[in-house]
Amino acid sequence: MGFAAVDVIRAKRDGQVLSDAAIDWVIGAYTAGEVAEEQMSALAMAILLNGMTGAEIARWTAAMIASGERLDLSGAQRPTVDKHSTGGVGDKITLPLAPLVASFGVAVPQLSGRGLGHTGGTLDKLEAIPGFRVRLSTEEFVGQLREVGASVCAASDALAPADRKLYALRDVTGTVESIPLIASSIMSKKIAEGTDALVLDVKVGSGAFMKDADSARELARTMVELGGAHRVRTVALLTDMATPLGLAVGNGIEVAESVQVLAGGGPADVVELTLALAREMLAAAGRPDVDPEAALANGTAMDSWRAMVWAQGGDPDAPLPTAAETELLRADRAGVVATMDAYGVGIAAWRAGAGRARKEDPVSAAAGVLLHRKPGEWVERGDVLAELRADDPARIAPALDDLRGAITVADAAPPRRPLVLDRVS
Amino acid sequence: MGFAAVDVIRAKRDGQVLSDAAIDWVIGAYTAGEVAEEQMSALAMAILLNGMTGAEIARWTAAMIASGERLDLSGAQRPTVDKHSTGGVGDKITLPLAPLVASFGVAVPQLSGRGLGHTGGTLDKLEAIPGFRVRLSTEEFVGQLREVGASVCAASDALAPADRKLYALRDVTGTVESIPLIASSIMSKKIAEGTDALVLDVKVGSGAFMKDADSARELARTMVELGGAHRVRTVALLTDMATPLGLAVGNGIEVAESVQVLAGGGPADVVELTLALAREMLAAAGRPDVDPEAALANGTAMDSWRAMVWAQGGDPDAPLPTAAETELLRADRAGVVATMDAYGVGIAAWRAGAGRARKEDPVSAAAGVLLHRKPGEWVERGDVLAELRADDPARIAPALDDLRGAITVADAAPPRRPLVLDRVS
Repeated sequence: MGFAAVDVIRAKRDGQVLSDAAIDWVIGAYTAGEVAEEQMSALAMAILLNGMTGAEIARWTAAMIASGERLDLSGAQRPTVDKHSTGGVGDKITLPLAPLVASFGVAVPQLSGRGLGHTGGTLDKLEAIPGFRVRLSTEEFVGQLREVGASVCAASDALAPADRKLYALRDVTGTVESIPLIASSIMSKKIAEGTDALVLDVKVGSGAFMKDADSARELARTMVELGGAHRVRTVALLTDMATPLGLAVGNGIEVAESVQVLAGGGPADVVELTLALAREMLAAAGRPDVDPEAALANGTAMDSWRAMVWAQGGDPDAPLPTAAETELLRADRAGVVATMDAYGVGIAAWRAGAGRARKEDPVSAAAGVLLHRKPGEWVERGDVLAELRADDPARIAPALDDLRGAITVADAAPPRRPLVLDRVS
Repeated sequence: MGFAAVDVIRAKRDGQVLSDAAIDWVIGAYTAGEVAEEQMSALAMAILLNGMTGAEIARWTAAMIASGERLDLSGAQRPTVDKHSTGGVGDKITLPLAPLVASFGVAVPQLSGRGLGHTGGTLDKLEAIPGFRVRLSTEEFVGQLREVGASVCAASDALAPADRKLYALRDVTGTVESIPLIASSIMSKKIAEGTDALVLDVKVGSGAFMKDADSARELARTMVELGGAHRVRTVALLTDMATPLGLAVGNGIEVAESVQVLAGGGPADVVELTLALAREMLAAAGRPDVDPEAALANGTAMDSWRAMVWAQGGDPDAPLPTAAETELLRADRAGVVATMDAYGVGIAAWRAGAGRARKEDPVSAAAGVLLHRKPGEWVERGDVLAELRADDPARIAPALDDLRGAITVADAAPPRRPLVLDRVS
């Protein structure tokens, strides 16, 4: 082998650039269990603090892809384009977006994840639909892409297994917030997935991992370059995550809101972001000419959604689970809703049962927060600001504290920033 | 508990000062197995790269002491003073020093360690003496301090167990070379040992962990302050470790060289450093008046050595193990011995079998390097520079390569620097 883990750790600790051979070795040996978890966590901390060059990030990503399989999606017989969000609060965009784009004859091969911490997970949301299966074989996945166009399911263990181990390790060792590690983690999974093109939704703000636009832009640039290096056409939008997307934050209630959008309605911000991302995806798939707004209005996107849900064992007409407990949060003064802090609302929904503290925990399909107002709207004293839902009555009080702390009513609201902040390609 | 490991890691990662409560919690929870090894290694890397304030180091050390027992040496009925070396090549000084100081009615409570890497360990050296026991109960240890004055044995598992775990972890995670972590590791063990006073031998040079005098001085100052804060009178000498100490590098042959010193002979540098440290220890123990040089000349130090060896089950008159294989390294030109690199000689002795690659490995009592010349001496072509000894013939060739690389003969030698470089108190 010619390497020892401690020498690779020391090199990065001392600010050196890791050689291609060292990177290949350490990722391979970690996947095989020959580099111990405590060694990889020390290396991850050294990477977080000392950084990696563009060449190191590229090799690290390539080594993570090479730790497993790379899917061949040619069986879909359609152009493929995927979307990835870096994670936010109320971010259900995949649900209307994937069928909307698929309704134009494009395949959307979404291998998605579960929620952890204050951010929700697309798979948890879809599982609120009675019968919906997120575990598909590769044959089922490719077959559904060919027949329906959109498929949203869990990634198989064979894709980027190094990333799977490292992601779990970073979560418990304070090594999440590293642009090289975030970029390589996302892109290794998406490149291994086999998509032709990729649109990234890089979130910025309190509810996102990137709190400021500069870091988000650097992350976006890094990922766009990694995509290009692996011949995946990649473009990124930087979008606001200071306030939750839409009114619903929770699993089942986000499905319901997504269905409203597919029916031509829904909150303006969810519609705006869905259309902005759809236009990018359609352009990347060679369909810059079509009008996604029309597909929301005329029902073709909804048809595509229903076909996707049926294909994965779900019943699009079944009622969604309802919560046993609800509690209303009312305004204690008249004024303008000034802030609805995404992080605080996300934590409230998480405490109500929509998220999990540990990755083996179950989530509630019905729990969450339904906002009745958004920033900039006028309220009278006593008006309902938001509604908390939970299965377990004991969860209401602590969640309500977080929710109350996240919302302020004042004499005036700060100017609203645009939803799409920048585009990196 | 009020803390989560990931929050403590993040705080240090982001350059914050850890609170006393956070330090107490993380050390206690790590000792109890509630903070995982991979979390502590990430924290250790963050400490190595972002540092700790004096107050943090003091609290970290106090928490490591509090993770176990602190010995009560009042039963020794003598003033107690210990010596600690940060580790070097050919550093057998404890062997003549402890009985020399004890011969003046002072107790030397040496809880010592084993070699790891290129540096030797005092316990490994003493175990070359047939019958010598390094595992003593606390009662045996204190009784021997009272009756004999000197005792060199292994620390019990009850002393600073947090340090025991952390030391092993740092070794495999590239987190050894941190002044806060080195200082707190050494001082937590020495303070828990219960000594009244302590003399530190901080090594500087290729064969030491501190390669330059500035880092060594900072380490020395940090440790002297920690000692003072715990009412252990502490003084440090900075001493040269560019060249091995004496002529013998190995377990049994270092015992033999130590006995020469106790008999009034031995290499000049070993005698010089033994006397310098003895004077510091005797002054710290309230005996600045006595003459340690006389005790080497008149046999009282030797009597004290023999009593110590007998007390620990060893036979001071038994022959030391001899090596099956020897190989001579000869000068390939006439000239002055210019360098004998301590690190290179240490590695050669280690490869010959004197040291271990993993902490569970056995060591050879007979293997090592016996230098025939030291820097500054003239040699003719073909003169013997050094002698390699091993039990296993397969170890000779690789060790000889390292040894050859460590020694240069030239037209002139660089000026020799003094053995004692500085004193910090």
